[in-house]
Amino acid sequence: MGIKRLVYMRGELEIEAKFKLERVEDVEKKVKRIADFVIDKIEEDIYFNSEFRDFSKSDEAIRLRKDVEGVSLTYKGPKIDKDTKAREEIKVRIFPEDYERMIDILEKIGLKKFAKVRKRRKIYRKGNILICIDSLEGLGDFIEIEVEDLDLEKAKAEIFKLVKILGIEKAENIRKSYLELLIKSGLLNTSNDFK
Amino acid sequence: MGIKRLVYMRGELEIEAKFKLERVEDVEKKVKRIADFVIDKIEEDIYFNSEFRDFSKSDEAIRLRKDVEGVSLTYKGPKIDKDTKAREEIKVRIFPEDYERMIDILEKIGLKKFAKVRKRRKIYRKGNILICIDSLEGLGDFIEIEVEDLDLEKAKAEIFKLVKILGIEKAENIRKSYLELLIKSGLLNTSNDFK
Repeated sequence: MGIKRLVYMRGELEIEAKFKLERVEDVEKKVKRIADFVIDKIEEDIYFNSEFRDFSKSDEAIRLRKDVEGVSLTYKGPKIDKDTKAREEIKVRIFPEDYERMIDILEKIGLKKFAKVRKRRKIYRKGNILICIDSLEGLGDFIEIEVEDLDLEKAKAEIFKLVKILGIEKAENIRKSYLELLIKSGLLNTSNDFK
Repeated sequence: MGIKRLVYMRGELEIEAKFKLERVEDVEKKVKRIADFVIDKIEEDIYFNSEFRDFSKSDEAIRLRKDVEGVSLTYKGPKIDKDTKAREEIKVRIFPEDYERMIDILEKIGLKKFAKVRKRRKIYRKGNILICIDSLEGLGDFIEIEVEDLDLEKAKAEIFKLVKILGIEKAENIRKSYLELLIKSGLLNTSNDFK
């Protein structure tokens, strides 16, 4: 395979894979054995769409996240890999007191609220690997494994090595975002939430 | 005249007036006598325009400011008063380390860098009145007087009372922004700065 060179990106490269968990307790027990617990939190995300480019078609996302750690605005570019959710990610931290005002500015410059996604996330770390155990009402439990590395192929190898250790079926790999999964399941009213 | 009711705004109302100063020392001496010094700083602003709505026509502005106090993203709405620069203002504070990333996100969602404006600003405060003594290379010295009040007419009265005390000619009131003044003077290459 050799090392693939990445296209130039202004943001970071987010390399992660996601799997549906039928028995979250079993997997989490294994995770706890090999990784350190970081945080257990509720993440509240608002996704925006653009008035002049349909992000659902361009496979982009703008997300405003609020949780106990703070508020952040994140741009996600189109996915670039067939096996993972790898994509460009640009993240900016906002002063938490300015959360509502950030929404207002985004709406002024041509974005519109599209959907809200709320989940419980438990994060574990093993070296440069972040492991998230996520629970979404109606959707169930998931594991997201993210490797902080600039080399896509190397990161993928690490992800799928861990997947094997945890006894997860590689075939259950889900490239859709939670937003896409919620829409697909009819669990989300998308923009109707804000009417 | 009576009290005018303001239209509903999601942001704050910024009520300020600006005057050109021929002899900045004389005016600043008077300011120092009646107001408290707050800060002396260099402000570096990047103005953005939108790909789908020309802000120079809609009289809007998106500004990313960097100075010793931090980084902020500000939306300014169309001016709403003939005597002052009063307009809606929505300001969000960004973590300073994320300055470049904020530019990247704005460009991803349809904004483009339009111009850079750099000025020295000395701020004084007298109660709910902020007094800025500004110097811009090529343009000269200015005073901006801002009153923090929700009532436009009351704020205007306060501004013009102070203008009289400082011996400034009310007729020299400038409604144009520094960005507009720089463009008008041919001092700014606007988007050429970024090519």
